[in-house]
Amino acid sequence: MLKPVNVGICGLGTVASGTVNILLRNAAIINARAGSELQIIHIGARRDNARCDTAGLRVSRDIFEVVDNAEVDIVVELIGGTTVAKDLVLKAIANGKHVVTANKALIAHHGNEIFAAAREKGVTVAFEAAVAGGIPIIKALREGLAANRIEWLAGIINGTGNFILTEMRDKGRAFDDVLKEAQALGYAEADPTFDVEGIDAAHKLVILASLAFGIPLDIKKVFTEGITRIAPEDVVYAEELGYRIKHLGIARRVEKGIELRVHPTLIPEKRLIANVDGVMNAIVVKGDAVGPTLYYGPGAGAEPTGSSVVADIIDVARTLSASPENRVPYLGFGDDFVTEQPILPIDEIETAYYLRMSVEDKPGVMSKVATILSDSGISIEALIQKEAKDGELFVPLILLTNIVQEKRLEAALREIEALESIVAPVMRIRLESLK
Amino acid sequence: MLKPVNVGICGLGTVASGTVNILLRNAAIINARAGSELQIIHIGARRDNARCDTAGLRVSRDIFEVVDNAEVDIVVELIGGTTVAKDLVLKAIANGKHVVTANKALIAHHGNEIFAAAREKGVTVAFEAAVAGGIPIIKALREGLAANRIEWLAGIINGTGNFILTEMRDKGRAFDDVLKEAQALGYAEADPTFDVEGIDAAHKLVILASLAFGIPLDIKKVFTEGITRIAPEDVVYAEELGYRIKHLGIARRVEKGIELRVHPTLIPEKRLIANVDGVMNAIVVKGDAVGPTLYYGPGAGAEPTGSSVVADIIDVARTLSASPENRVPYLGFGDDFVTEQPILPIDEIETAYYLRMSVEDKPGVMSKVATILSDSGISIEALIQKEAKDGELFVPLILLTNIVQEKRLEAALREIEALESIVAPVMRIRLESLK
Repeated sequence: MLKPVNVGICGLGTVASGTVNILLRNAAIINARAGSELQIIHIGARRDNARCDTAGLRVSRDIFEVVDNAEVDIVVELIGGTTVAKDLVLKAIANGKHVVTANKALIAHHGNEIFAAAREKGVTVAFEAAVAGGIPIIKALREGLAANRIEWLAGIINGTGNFILTEMRDKGRAFDDVLKEAQALGYAEADPTFDVEGIDAAHKLVILASLAFGIPLDIKKVFTEGITRIAPEDVVYAEELGYRIKHLGIARRVEKGIELRVHPTLIPEKRLIANVDGVMNAIVVKGDAVGPTLYYGPGAGAEPTGSSVVADIIDVARTLSASPENRVPYLGFGDDFVTEQPILPIDEIETAYYLRMSVEDKPGVMSKVATILSDSGISIEALIQKEAKDGELFVPLILLTNIVQEKRLEAALREIEALESIVAPVMRIRLESLK
Repeated sequence: MLKPVNVGICGLGTVASGTVNILLRNAAIINARAGSELQIIHIGARRDNARCDTAGLRVSRDIFEVVDNAEVDIVVELIGGTTVAKDLVLKAIANGKHVVTANKALIAHHGNEIFAAAREKGVTVAFEAAVAGGIPIIKALREGLAANRIEWLAGIINGTGNFILTEMRDKGRAFDDVLKEAQALGYAEADPTFDVEGIDAAHKLVILASLAFGIPLDIKKVFTEGITRIAPEDVVYAEELGYRIKHLGIARRVEKGIELRVHPTLIPEKRLIANVDGVMNAIVVKGDAVGPTLYYGPGAGAEPTGSSVVADIIDVARTLSASPENRVPYLGFGDDFVTEQPILPIDEIETAYYLRMSVEDKPGVMSKVATILSDSGISIEALIQKEAKDGELFVPLILLTNIVQEKRLEAALREIEALESIVAPVMRIRLESLK
């Protein structure tokens, strides 16, 4: 057994309470796996947390006291946000401490700067808990699949959004209705923007993409579209066509560059990831050697996320004696290798589409739509046309297209939306086969 | 970039060809991830392999020349089997070389001895490719979930068996019929015993259980039951009851000890793992902190398995400068922690059961069966009784029981099988909710 490793924890919210509880409850297992005794010697938190017994532990109200404590080897940043957290992490690094964080926004926005500072000081910054809670996806990408040229990855990386879409499908409920329930259950925030508009997923996606492709973190280049416009009938029509709608983060390497996009997506119901329901997360990673692999588990919560925080602490403890250049690098690749690659704007990407339009119930309309698509080189792969109910002037027309460049589809849709017999706008949802 | 790391490869079969091809094709990515230049400097193989271009590489017909090559840092054992492979690995260790192997039988049978020898010499033995091909499950268990007390794991860890069960379900075909096709497709060996009787799965399960619970490897204590007796009607009845039949390896920590068993198992169709089809593998791991997580991917094949071999080579390259006690230990836990724990004999385990019996089509039989079960404290959770077709004297009766100790169920079934109105034997398949 090596010498004890001293851990300082900043923040005492949900994830911190899970982390502390795991470290205390599973101390014997954790020390046997770490090869050294991990001790929480200092906690910095503005207030206590009833879910976490800190009796006998040193607690400071000034979080920065932890970072300045000369005895602390590893600083665990669990305060969240990107302002104080950034100062805290940079100060910890400047003080020569290793850092473990669960803060996806911090890494997505300031990861490049933080890694540069850590490199300079020869310390480690670990962030497994920043993506997909308890799923060890960072380790899988960075180490487990290290032999592969990653072709693409696609993930359900926001539990709130997946809970809402699952309820919409299972119970035929409307988005607003389910959102209210999710808020009541504590799955969604009072202001749900971060979750339902895909901002949280974008933070995680940009981290995964950097690990997969060896590109610097750049949150500004992720295309983000939320799930607020998905109607219950879209879920039903998708099902009739053999698909499920999921809010996916997708990163794909194509010839011209890299696609980075978060949006609602139709997935064939046969795919395993199409069957990931409720608040659970899952990520499919396609490597050139391994083929498709999938990682599934709880994407949030005190102990699931704490599980990843503690795994990082153990990893850092194991690398304390290794020379910095022998440690697994922040983004999986050595620094020389990490290079900018063009991130494609959304209208350059190529994908298939689900289109739902309201068309006038009279002869010739369908043929006009088909002609516009065909003239644009877009083919129709599947179609649902419903009969008009009594008294209805417009009927829904649902189409699946082949794979087409987004700007070409948008041009065709502008023509279609200009037809007198179509109620604009046409609902479009991207479709990925994920093969 | 650190100094080059010299790799020697023993064997040039399927996995070796995948390994060599990946190392050559993805050299830039792999070196950037390893932090050093990995070079294949020596291959030992009795014959060439057309799927793998070894032009410019040194190839010896005597495999042991690789092990004795003073320039080789890492010996990759891909010859298979447990005799020559064992000598080879022990010789490599004795020569102070790190070892990477894909050999599940070798680790399951001789792992304890091999690890002891490696510990003595301060070298690493890595074996990610030994379980579930390309899925980085060993890394997930040993590092990703290191914070957890593992409660249980359950895996589809033999692709051949899963292919057969999937075909039986999808097409209503019989076992023998599908087995012949699997043999024609190259998914099953001419002698399919290893796969269909669960021996291959037992090798993998014993490795996973050691990593999960910190127990020495002991292949002799795994209970193994094959899939040869599963009838097409069992698949149909299971489906009617909302279940799928999968050949699972299960390791569970219970109060009295550890369960280690490979057998056909009914799983609720809603579980993600119930939807893992064809030759794919998946493992569910339940940790006390993280909850359930699942890992899915190809369990065999040249490049999927090669992906794990190369990941191990990269890992070993990264630990070359770390002191041996700082490396991740073979079984995840430090040696002091690894202790024998009682492995429960199969009649001590507790699980639910699917029972299928042929009963005489006359009044009172069902009540006799129900009375015997009830008197044994076994309750019936679900039941299917079919009407007799014209002229049939016996009808199928299908029951799901509650969770009961196996020896108690067996005693009750002996009574039931002794009834005149029952055609013995009763088909029993264990059922796990995997929650």
